[in-house]
Amino acid sequence: VNFTSDNTYGVAAPIMDAIVAVNYGAVGSYGGDPWTARVVCQFCELFEREVKVFLLPSGTAANALAISSLTPPHGAVFCHNESHILLEECGACEFYSSGARLVPVSGFAGRMMPLELNAAIAKYSGIRNDLIPAALSITQSTECGTVYQPDAVAELCSIAHKRGMAVHMDGARFANSVVSLGLPPAAVTWRAGIDILSFGATKNGALAAEAVIVFDTDRASDLIYRCKRAGLLLSKMRFVAAQWEAYLADGLWLRLAGHANTMARQLADGLRGVADVRLPWPTDANEVFCLMAGSMVKRLRDAGASFHEWTTVGLYASPFEPTPDEVFVRLVTSFQTTQDQIDIFLKLAADD
Amino acid sequence: VNFTSDNTYGVAAPIMDAIVAVNYGAVGSYGGDPWTARVVCQFCELFEREVKVFLLPSGTAANALAISSLTPPHGAVFCHNESHILLEECGACEFYSSGARLVPVSGFAGRMMPLELNAAIAKYSGIRNDLIPAALSITQSTECGTVYQPDAVAELCSIAHKRGMAVHMDGARFANSVVSLGLPPAAVTWRAGIDILSFGATKNGALAAEAVIVFDTDRASDLIYRCKRAGLLLSKMRFVAAQWEAYLADGLWLRLAGHANTMARQLADGLRGVADVRLPWPTDANEVFCLMAGSMVKRLRDAGASFHEWTTVGLYASPFEPTPDEVFVRLVTSFQTTQDQIDIFLKLAADD
Amino acid sequence: VNFTSDNTYGVAAPIMDAIVAVNYGAVGSYGGDPWTARVVCQFCELFEREVKVFLLPSGTAANALAISSLTPPHGAVFCHNESHILLEECGACEFYSSGARLVPVSGFAGRMMPLELNAAIAKYSGIRNDLIPAALSITQSTECGTVYQPDAVAELCSIAHKRGMAVHMDGARFANSVVSLGLPPAAVTWRAGIDILSFGATKNGALAAEAVIVFDTDRASDLIYRCKRAGLLLSKMRFVAAQWEAYLADGLWLRLAGHANTMARQLADGLRGVADVRLPWPTDANEVFCLMAGSMVKRLRDAGASFHEWTTVGLYASPFEPTPDEVFVRLVTSFQTTQDQIDIFLKLAADD
Amino acid sequence: VNFTSDNTYGVAAPIMDAIVAVNYGAVGSYGGDPWTARVVCQFCELFEREVKVFLLPSGTAANALAISSLTPPHGAVFCHNESHILLEECGACEFYSSGARLVPVSGFAGRMMPLELNAAIAKYSGIRNDLIPAALSITQSTECGTVYQPDAVAELCSIAHKRGMAVHMDGARFANSVVSLGLPPAAVTWRAGIDILSFGATKNGALAAEAVIVFDTDRASDLIYRCKRAGLLLSKMRFVAAQWEAYLADGLWLRLAGHANTMARQLADGLRGVADVRLPWPTDANEVFCLMAGSMVKRLRDAGASFHEWTTVGLYASPFEPTPDEVFVRLVTSFQTTQDQIDIFLKLAADD
Repeated sequence: VNFTSDNTYGVAAPIMDAIVAVNYGAVGSYGGDPWTARVVCQFCELFEREVKVFLLPSGTAANALAISSLTPPHGAVFCHNESHILLEECGACEFYSSGARLVPVSGFAGRMMPLELNAAIAKYSGIRNDLIPAALSITQSTECGTVYQPDAVAELCSIAHKRGMAVHMDGARFANSVVSLGLPPAAVTWRAGIDILSFGATKNGALAAEAVIVFDTDRASDLIYRCKRAGLLLSKMRFVAAQWEAYLADGLWLRLAGHANTMARQLADGLRGVADVRLPWPTDANEVFCLMAGSMVKRLRDAGASFHEWTTVGLYASPFEPTPDEVFVRLVTSFQTTQDQIDIFLKLAADD
Repeated sequence: VNFTSDNTYGVAAPIMDAIVAVNYGAVGSYGGDPWTARVVCQFCELFEREVKVFLLPSGTAANALAISSLTPPHGAVFCHNESHILLEECGACEFYSSGARLVPVSGFAGRMMPLELNAAIAKYSGIRNDLIPAALSITQSTECGTVYQPDAVAELCSIAHKRGMAVHMDGARFANSVVSLGLPPAAVTWRAGIDILSFGATKNGALAAEAVIVFDTDRASDLIYRCKRAGLLLSKMRFVAAQWEAYLADGLWLRLAGHANTMARQLADGLRGVADVRLPWPTDANEVFCLMAGSMVKRLRDAGASFHEWTTVGLYASPFEPTPDEVFVRLVTSFQTTQDQIDIFLKLAADD
Repeated sequence: VNFTSDNTYGVAAPIMDAIVAVNYGAVGSYGGDPWTARVVCQFCELFEREVKVFLLPSGTAANALAISSLTPPHGAVFCHNESHILLEECGACEFYSSGARLVPVSGFAGRMMPLELNAAIAKYSGIRNDLIPAALSITQSTECGTVYQPDAVAELCSIAHKRGMAVHMDGARFANSVVSLGLPPAAVTWRAGIDILSFGATKNGALAAEAVIVFDTDRASDLIYRCKRAGLLLSKMRFVAAQWEAYLADGLWLRLAGHANTMARQLADGLRGVADVRLPWPTDANEVFCLMAGSMVKRLRDAGASFHEWTTVGLYASPFEPTPDEVFVRLVTSFQTTQDQIDIFLKLAADD
Repeated sequence: VNFTSDNTYGVAAPIMDAIVAVNYGAVGSYGGDPWTARVVCQFCELFEREVKVFLLPSGTAANALAISSLTPPHGAVFCHNESHILLEECGACEFYSSGARLVPVSGFAGRMMPLELNAAIAKYSGIRNDLIPAALSITQSTECGTVYQPDAVAELCSIAHKRGMAVHMDGARFANSVVSLGLPPAAVTWRAGIDILSFGATKNGALAAEAVIVFDTDRASDLIYRCKRAGLLLSKMRFVAAQWEAYLADGLWLRLAGHANTMARQLADGLRGVADVRLPWPTDANEVFCLMAGSMVKRLRDAGASFHEWTTVGLYASPFEPTPDEVFVRLVTSFQTTQDQIDIFLKLAADD
């Protein structure tokens, strides 16, 4: 039973089949192939508008490149204090933006609060404090396994746009949020005010396939140079395009994410019934966070279950602040998680 | 007939099989999987010594990351004036090194000349000229389709080391040079003085698999951070490792490169017999460069052949400086080039 | 009455005299002059040990250059959440370090708390969170006009050194702290664990004279290149050296700072006696911070007094959190502040 | 007799007087003082149009900041292969531009040739060669002590503008060129197509006073942030403004440069009469370059004369390529060079 991350799993069969299927002939490299051209059309249809698309092999790169196109080096980029770009990407945003600053904003359950965002921006508005408020980055689904409703996204975007800032969405688990909301992708992105999206497929069954989607096509005119300069414009791009083509075809992406979400919900529901387990947040997507007795964690691990302890920064000054005996853990389900794995884990957890 | 580049072709069957074969189960991400561990051992055996290995999806990234570990921002990096890092990577070395300078050094047939290298370094030695000579980068096989003999590599490395500089080898087509030389990989790398190697597999039949090989294992202690920070540490690394495992197993890499080299040699030999075609350099690897009548270029392209015109910078002041009627072209063969393609091309070329 | 900043004032007479006095003859540029050589000796004597010295025209540059020599681009630099490097330097540290991150640490009255520092560092120690804890920066005297005792500095340095981090002191108002403590400069710097000091003279009567003092002379071997590369190695350096020579001679620096401190203390003492004025912190140096009724602020400004409103971040959740009627202001005295100015200001404040 | 550089000399008396004269009272810092406002007006009058002005303490910083406002990180900046920004500033342009590339262009006597410029740009125009031609930088007076005529400037600017590039002029010795040409400053700058000028006063009698002059005032909107971020926005700016005010008042700048030019011309004329001395270029400004017998160099130095040997890169393949017995030297005169010094030097040189 491995709940450490959705990226510990492999590739969904239809995606692997697609990779194999495009392996013939000589085609233009660096994206000059027919599959890449076709995928761009798929994205335009999916988002019900014209978009610019940059296919990439890595989510960290997608986030950092997207954000670097929104901020000058002397810009401040506001993000949740538990965001992946802040805590897990080794300063990639700072690197790609030549030194822009990430400003952490707190919020409950992974969702940034308008009040906190306003307060954070206010500090970057004085005359002597010269960094410019340049961009906002929010994550959908969030790092806490919750989801923003479209109106919540719109409210944050509105705050940002009023200050002349652009808005980025980190969609490493975008599919999980779309399934959870049951809304068209346009509704939680550009219609709510998002300017640029990092759309991830890797965590949801691709091999290495991410995309930066630019909604305002006047923007990001230098992004192709930034990709090339970073060595992120792959030569045999057809194999990234093929993954996307299969991912988006016939709703595969939603089926894969839907399964992962269902597994997470069952896991969460089961854990709520176990004594000594507390769940601080709802389980909207494919990640379950809970406080467990240390002895339970040990028992689960001894039995072969894998999962990460997690930062408790989001629990401070809440009823869920851990007691000395509790450990805060993250459990991630994937497109390959099985009912059996959920059952085994719940049985182990309950088996006091 | 497509001779534009070896990266227009797909993936060799054994490598694609290997990708499919590792697609099961949950394993550690970011390189914490058994295949990655095994590939490191393969590299150590191949190079007959302990090495550090960083698996990457892109050759530009491999070059730039490797070089960034050898130079401070205020360093000068000497490279051939036709080198890929200078002409084709959109300033990746400058980006990764926070602004180090590439200093072009001229030389014949893609090979840097010791005399020219010494002269170039001498300009960066004065008191008022403050950039430090930090690194040398040479390409094997070269951008002109030639190969350095080990003693030529050793002479350049010796010049660099005497000045306290480190030496990088761009081995985007390393396999082609090893086959051409018929020597063990160690002989043209660390035994000749190379400190760090960008070893490419993508152009020779992999999907997206490159490796930075660090010979002096005390070096490059910060390279893992640089990889992560650039978004180049792929989460599902097993699929890069699997490509390498298959590539190195049973000499597949040498067979693939050997075929490409043979095709190139046949193409070169054939072209030498065609009137109005001049070849300035020997064809040591899988690239043929020649001067053709413009009318011949048109005829070939009209018949469906694809290839690039190339920079004539290396021909200046030589007997091969193009006449007004001549076009300088590059023809690249690959592991998938067929005898038929060579024959068709030669027939078209000769058919005046 | 101008209390906006100590840098609104001009140059102390002995320092201006020294500038004029060295204006003869031709001498080596970029620091190759006899005055610069002499000043280095003065610093060694002052700090009772060998030091490396870099003379600079700007305090922001001194801070950023010093810090850039302590951290890799993938480093985290811990600083007080009201520190000048964080709030007032437009991302200079990020610029000079090629994108290192400033991590704010809270603390009372401008002084970082060991507990908070430990907590902040702890977040940069995990396996997935890849930025390295690289440096600590503390300010003496602090941005709140208070002073660290040597044992407080030593405790923070000890925490940093245990983690392999280096420690920088922002001494833009170093003189004010030395006078306040009545201790030799060595006692609050290297003897307490400081590795590198930005020593400012500009705010205390120089024209434009700052110095980076490196205590561990094995460090910062690349700082001269960083200075040159940033255009901060002035050609007519003798005029910076002359300022320092006069500043340090016969204790001028301590007399100037002593006067400013005395004026600040009188101002603080006077304000404590005024109704509707609250001072949250002691006045150890030359800055007075207080909460005033908005009407009092208006009256003072109408009468011609100048001063800044200040960030209230340091007052949150304290007895000094401003009421809706209160404004938080900063009053800075300088070497030129007169008794008259203090009296006039106090009279205006009291005159309800 | 010191001919090493014009920056070995001190400050012209009227400029030092001006520094002393503004040393009173409290004024706005960081350029918020009346003198800075006034100097901006002086520049507008001098250039007969509205300009943006940034006062700086260093010429290297002025060049690098100006250029960084004209190029993206993935830009190529064309400059003469003997230019100061290429050879003497430790990569400042690369640092400030986050890694743009300086591309050397050759030319005779320090002047870039239109043919060579076109050829260099042509290499940065291909599809695979992704750096963008972004800016041109030329030096006036040149690094060889010659001067561009307005039509020569206009021709280079026209080439650049046609390619969408902007043009920077390094005017470290701008005064010397204006005197030499006898034309209004507008004629050799914006009227000829210059977009941004680094205007130096330090080498011509100021203490530390440079200015970036932006002619197209729509440009460089982020330059103030770049200045602040680099620590180059001095707090006591009045003392830089005062230098400029005095420098420009009553033609002082032209008188100082005129004297230096006259001294250089006398020196050149005298040297032309000395056996074994060859001057490759005319002496338009305040620098004399000549080939001297090694024995003559030794004799001059033994007698106490100071001067630099210089790079011979500009002499290659010309009638002035040095013989084994010759040394190439640079002799710089300044506003303080005396007739006596010229006479002594010439006497020593001739005294075989």
